[in-house]
Parts: sequence; structure tokens; C-alpha cells
Amino acid sequence: MFRLDKRLQGDTLYLGRFPLCQALMMNDSRYPWVILVPCRNDIREYYHLSQQERAQLMEESAWVAEKMSDFFEAKSMNVAALGNVVAQLHVHHIARYDDDPAWPGPVWGHSPAVPFSEAEKAERVEALQDLFSSHFIDESSLHDDSDDTVYW
Amino acid sequence: MFRLDKRLQGDTLYLGRFPLCQALMMNDSRYPWVILVPCRNDIREYYHLSQQERAQLMEESAWVAEKMSDFFEAKSMNVAALGNVVAQLHVHHIARYDDDPAWPGPVWGHSPAVPFSEAEKAERVEALQDLFSSHFIDESSLHDDSDDTVYW
Repeated sequence: MFRLDKRLQGDTLYLGRFPLCQALMMNDSRYPWVILVPCRNDIREYYHLSQQERAQLMEESAWVAEKMSDFFEAKSMNVAALGNVVAQLHVHHIARYDDDPAWPGPVWGHSPAVPFSEAEKAERVEALQDLFSSHFIDESSLHDDSDDTVYW
Repeated sequence: MFRLDKRLQGDTLYLGRFPLCQALMMNDSRYPWVILVPCRNDIREYYHLSQQERAQLMEESAWVAEKMSDFFEAKSMNVAALGNVVAQLHVHHIARYDDDPAWPGPVWGHSPAVPFSEAEKAERVEALQDLFSSHFIDESSLHDDSDDTVYW
């Protein structure tokens, strides 16, 4: 059974499931910000995944970045796995604008998140779910158990 | 003919060439910091590469991160493509420690680089070239010309 890090869970909203990753939306209204988390336990770095999983992660990540860039008309996409605070491998996808609060610096650590209102939150979740729905799968058909887990 | 961004060129030292990417060392003595740049012109995002190139980039990136993590005994590896300042696609690989100047925040924008002394620089370049030498290739055997370039 895959276990999402508690802090990631607290900071985000669940959007849906790609073949490898859960898609989460960061609850910060200032930036379009999606996090992909490979549903494998005990993975901290890309190189802890198998080569096949890495290729899949890259495809899910690049597709998400392209869809977000087009939809949000981003100036650039920040795609990053940091892991300084939350060790569980998770990949940020942030649509950036040259007039956003942190530009041209990174958003992490710049200033506290400004959560969405309930209405805004529901609207943004729905917009992102629509954006990604063609590649979301039915999570109940999967078995993210220890047999699938890559250990190092 | 592949053209490296002038700012990347000015901030880094050349280490060598993987099948897809140039490996560069950031000239900041505070962090072990390697940048991979796919040798393709006019690429700003992962999704501008072909699927095959993305898979290759992921393998080169994961391998570099693993070698750096082991060699520098990192607490975590930051792997990121930002592109806010330099648009040409380039992927940072930074070995982080819980007592480094920017921990646990990101290094970008934290404080100005502290360049290596000439002696330190030569030593670090040699160490990284040794670390990566098994996968470096002879650049003169390649043709990074417009025929190889992926356009969008």
C-alpha cells in the first residue's frame, strides 16, 4: 500500500492518478503548482526508481508541464525534485510569470503560501482535473503494494 | 552546431560530454553543483525534446545525481530545470547538506556565488571528470547540427 507523506498530504489537494504518479495541487493561490508523486514507497531520489519507472515519470512530468504551460500561458515552467524538507520523491511543476511574487527567483522559501478560498479551490481543482483527465486512470484497478516497490 | 547559452558558459566550467548532454560545473565553491545541458538548440522545456531524448536525459541526470550523492555524501540531491533566468534547457544537480548556507531552502537566489580559487577549481574539475569519465564520450565523434535539432 502506497503511503503519501503526511506533509505533502496537508499542503495539497488530490487531483487524480496517472499510471505511475499521484497528481496533487499545491494549496497556494499565487502560482499554478502541481506535484507528481510516484506511488512507490521508500523512494527519495530519481535513481531509486527503476529505469522503466524513470522513463514513465519523465513522460508524465513532461506532459503535465506542457499542459500547464499552454493552459496557464506560462513564461516558463519550473520542474524540480528537491527533497530538503519532504524526503519522499515528489516533483514540482510550477507555471511562472515575470510578474509573479518570486520572479525570477524560486518560489520555495520565498514567502508563506496564500491558500485558495473554498470557491477558488474547487474551481482550480476542477480546471486541473479537466486538463489532465485524458491521462488519469482508475486507481482502484492498481495494486501499489510492496511487490511493486523498488528498494535500494 | 550546438550553441551553449552565454550566461551558462560564463558561470560554469566544462567537464565533458555525455551522449545527449554537456556536463558543466557551477563555479560556486559552497555547493557541489553540476548542470546538464542537452546539446540541442532552441529547447526550453523537457517537452520540447523527443521522447527518446527525454529518456536519455533522465538516465544521464539520474546517473549524475547518484554518483554525486555517493561521492559528496549528500543529505539530498536537488534536481531542477527552472529556466527563469536562462531559457535554454539546463538541469541543475546540487548536492545538499543540512549545514549548507541555504539549507533547507533552495540555493538559487539565496546569495551570490563564492567562486573557487584557481587551485580548488582545478581540483574539483578533476574530481568530477574522474567521477563521470566512464560515461563521457568523445565529442568530436558527434554532429550536433541542425539535423539533430528538435523544433517545436
